[in-house]
Amino acid sequence: MEKVKIGLLGFGTVGQGVWKTVRMNRDDLIHNAGLDVEISKILVRDMGKDREINPDSSFLTTNPLDIIEDESIQIVVELVGGIEEAKDFLEKAIEKGKHVVTANKALLALHGKELTEKAEKRGVQLRYEASVAGGIPILHAIRESLSANRIEKIMGIVNGTTNYILTRMSREGISFDEALKEAQNKGYAEADPTADVDGFDAAHKLTILASLGFKSGVDFEQVYCEGIRRMTPTDIEYAKELGFAVKLLAIGTEREGKLELRVHPTFIDEDHPLAAVNDAFNAVFIEGNAVGELMFYGKGAGDMPTASAVLGDIINVSRNQHHPNPQAYRLDFPKNRKHIMSMEETQTGYYIRFMVKDSPGVLGEIASTFGKNGVSLSSVIQKGEGEESVPLVFITHKTRESAVQKTIRQIQKFDAVTEVANLIRVEALS
Amino acid sequence: MEKVKIGLLGFGTVGQGVWKTVRMNRDDLIHNAGLDVEISKILVRDMGKDREINPDSSFLTTNPLDIIEDESIQIVVELVGGIEEAKDFLEKAIEKGKHVVTANKALLALHGKELTEKAEKRGVQLRYEASVAGGIPILHAIRESLSANRIEKIMGIVNGTTNYILTRMSREGISFDEALKEAQNKGYAEADPTADVDGFDAAHKLTILASLGFKSGVDFEQVYCEGIRRMTPTDIEYAKELGFAVKLLAIGTEREGKLELRVHPTFIDEDHPLAAVNDAFNAVFIEGNAVGELMFYGKGAGDMPTASAVLGDIINVSRNQHHPNPQAYRLDFPKNRKHIMSMEETQTGYYIRFMVKDSPGVLGEIASTFGKNGVSLSSVIQKGEGEESVPLVFITHKTRESAVQKTIRQIQKFDAVTEVANLIRVEALS
Repeated sequence: MEKVKIGLLGFGTVGQGVWKTVRMNRDDLIHNAGLDVEISKILVRDMGKDREINPDSSFLTTNPLDIIEDESIQIVVELVGGIEEAKDFLEKAIEKGKHVVTANKALLALHGKELTEKAEKRGVQLRYEASVAGGIPILHAIRESLSANRIEKIMGIVNGTTNYILTRMSREGISFDEALKEAQNKGYAEADPTADVDGFDAAHKLTILASLGFKSGVDFEQVYCEGIRRMTPTDIEYAKELGFAVKLLAIGTEREGKLELRVHPTFIDEDHPLAAVNDAFNAVFIEGNAVGELMFYGKGAGDMPTASAVLGDIINVSRNQHHPNPQAYRLDFPKNRKHIMSMEETQTGYYIRFMVKDSPGVLGEIASTFGKNGVSLSSVIQKGEGEESVPLVFITHKTRESAVQKTIRQIQKFDAVTEVANLIRVEALS
Repeated sequence: MEKVKIGLLGFGTVGQGVWKTVRMNRDDLIHNAGLDVEISKILVRDMGKDREINPDSSFLTTNPLDIIEDESIQIVVELVGGIEEAKDFLEKAIEKGKHVVTANKALLALHGKELTEKAEKRGVQLRYEASVAGGIPILHAIRESLSANRIEKIMGIVNGTTNYILTRMSREGISFDEALKEAQNKGYAEADPTADVDGFDAAHKLTILASLGFKSGVDFEQVYCEGIRRMTPTDIEYAKELGFAVKLLAIGTEREGKLELRVHPTFIDEDHPLAAVNDAFNAVFIEGNAVGELMFYGKGAGDMPTASAVLGDIINVSRNQHHPNPQAYRLDFPKNRKHIMSMEETQTGYYIRFMVKDSPGVLGEIASTFGKNGVSLSSVIQKGEGEESVPLVFITHKTRESAVQKTIRQIQKFDAVTEVANLIRVEALS
């Protein structure tokens, strides 16, 4: 049986989860993987801090070089978070010839291309299963089990916080602010919720998923990113009435060699498997040209699910140590950079809610403006009567974003239109 | 780049799917796996038969030894189906030092223990991802990505035919016979549907899943197996009313070192992710002690999804050729055979529908018989009035099968009870 010594950089929730899992499942690791995983050293900021797990102080160090330069350590696990320091640690570890495992999605979204290239040049493996969708082994599936496929579409609920908020809004009819407060009280959302609710976290993950799945380096800035702050109980009610669930989706599609990459709240057909993914759960839906539709569902965060993914990487790295294929997990393909469409070029369905003065002819005027711009409508809902301002809701068939935006700019100018209250993209089943 | 030469034993739907996928996705295989997969030789029964795919006759042979004894072929793929012949081919290929890939679930359920042992002793790899849930890479996930977990529960919709039939019955209110006929007309069910509708196919797959997941050799005969023929529109109506979906589930649970293994129609809470798996789709739900709940969803059959799994195995075998860990996919663990509970010992919830004469006191008499046997009830539905015979429906909390069966035997004797119309097991969310 093989012994593998690892060093942990950071000992927060995930680091402690790795420690607990190694203790709890040592027999399983030995049996399943033929590996005896030993945590040799742990980098902490504060030696004396009282944690849920308090290893003997001989395990702890405040000097990263005690891990990075330790000849006996084969795999360095980066769990400090943040960008600059984490990047510096990983680079040093790679230079020293260590295999590296990280759960740091922001780092990979911003610097994954150079880091995976560095690892490849140095002949070591860099793995990051835990960076996307926590415990769900989606990256491993894409790069190993599904290798015989061309991936055509990736669609994910990859942020648990926003999924929890949208689930609460849908079930209870409460506002975004109320649901956010509840998520914060339950520990699902941070005091500063920007990274989650504005979609950046999901966009980081889509950057990684798309680069790996479509084999084309993606820059984080190229991913269209829109959060869920504008979602209202009114719109969610319409979604239900029209047969949709509301999800923050990270969507990547390859069409004729070009990529569409976008994160935004989405009305998704209630019969789509993603529609049933609720609370803080994550799921990634994939279409491969051989395998067809697949979905992977599970916990996107938490100490133990994330530790499961980190340890999966450690096992995989150890198994491949003598015959590595570092190229398998690279995030850049300089010779094969696919064009990434601007949002104007993308195509999807749209839900548009106008507020209009209830006057004769306004529905006809708006509907024909859609028609003139080549946007075909699949549903219209007009409600309320006699009130000063009434909602007028349209669902379009799949159409180009630019055509929809142009139409809205024209409709906005109508005297009878008091407000373009919301625009939400729609994934209907074909 | 590495070249891998494979031989196909059999050229039906799946064999032709492998051929098509290798042609269609050659670039992806080279890029993703660094592998140039070449199909060298194909065993057919009839050289002249006109197929959807007709390779040059130089690829075809009617002599299995042309493949098994060909020194240049590294991997033999068994797709002939059946038991004896397939087993003979695999044994011969293993003896010759070939790695082997198969999609043959019946063969593995009945002889997987000896075959994986033979492969391990000979130092070759035996893989069978396509044998369970078609294109869904569930076995690979269990044995690789989730290696750091102890698997506690496996629950799967692993037979597309029965899932299609139950979906149609639920949506349209039609009878089992009508839905079966429809499935046969659509090509989802065989002319002789026994293997599917009586649960044997699902039990084969559970034998494989449980052996691998719980690391304990399971004999096919030890899996309790009950099909869906007794399912009626009436019971499905009650399921909906009570908040359940109806699925044929293959369930494996480890409790205190003992295994519970059963295939039967199940009322599953409509909020469970498996409840949303419809039509011919498959899904496997897993609970690991670190990762928590995971679900994998996709196509369980079909030429291309199955080919995707077969090729995933081929890639994996090739990658591990120089450093194989054949033990990883064994199906027997003679030193670690866990006790498998009889059905009497298992515990779950129950739906029981009695037909009774509408006379005073009958509900009370039945309910107290449950109570006397320690079976606690969670719901009761009494309907109809004045008719000769009315339904009386009970849902129990989780309880021992033996206690429920004993109760039913007692109740059956009551004068007022005309029939025990159905008993269906229930998976409620805890």
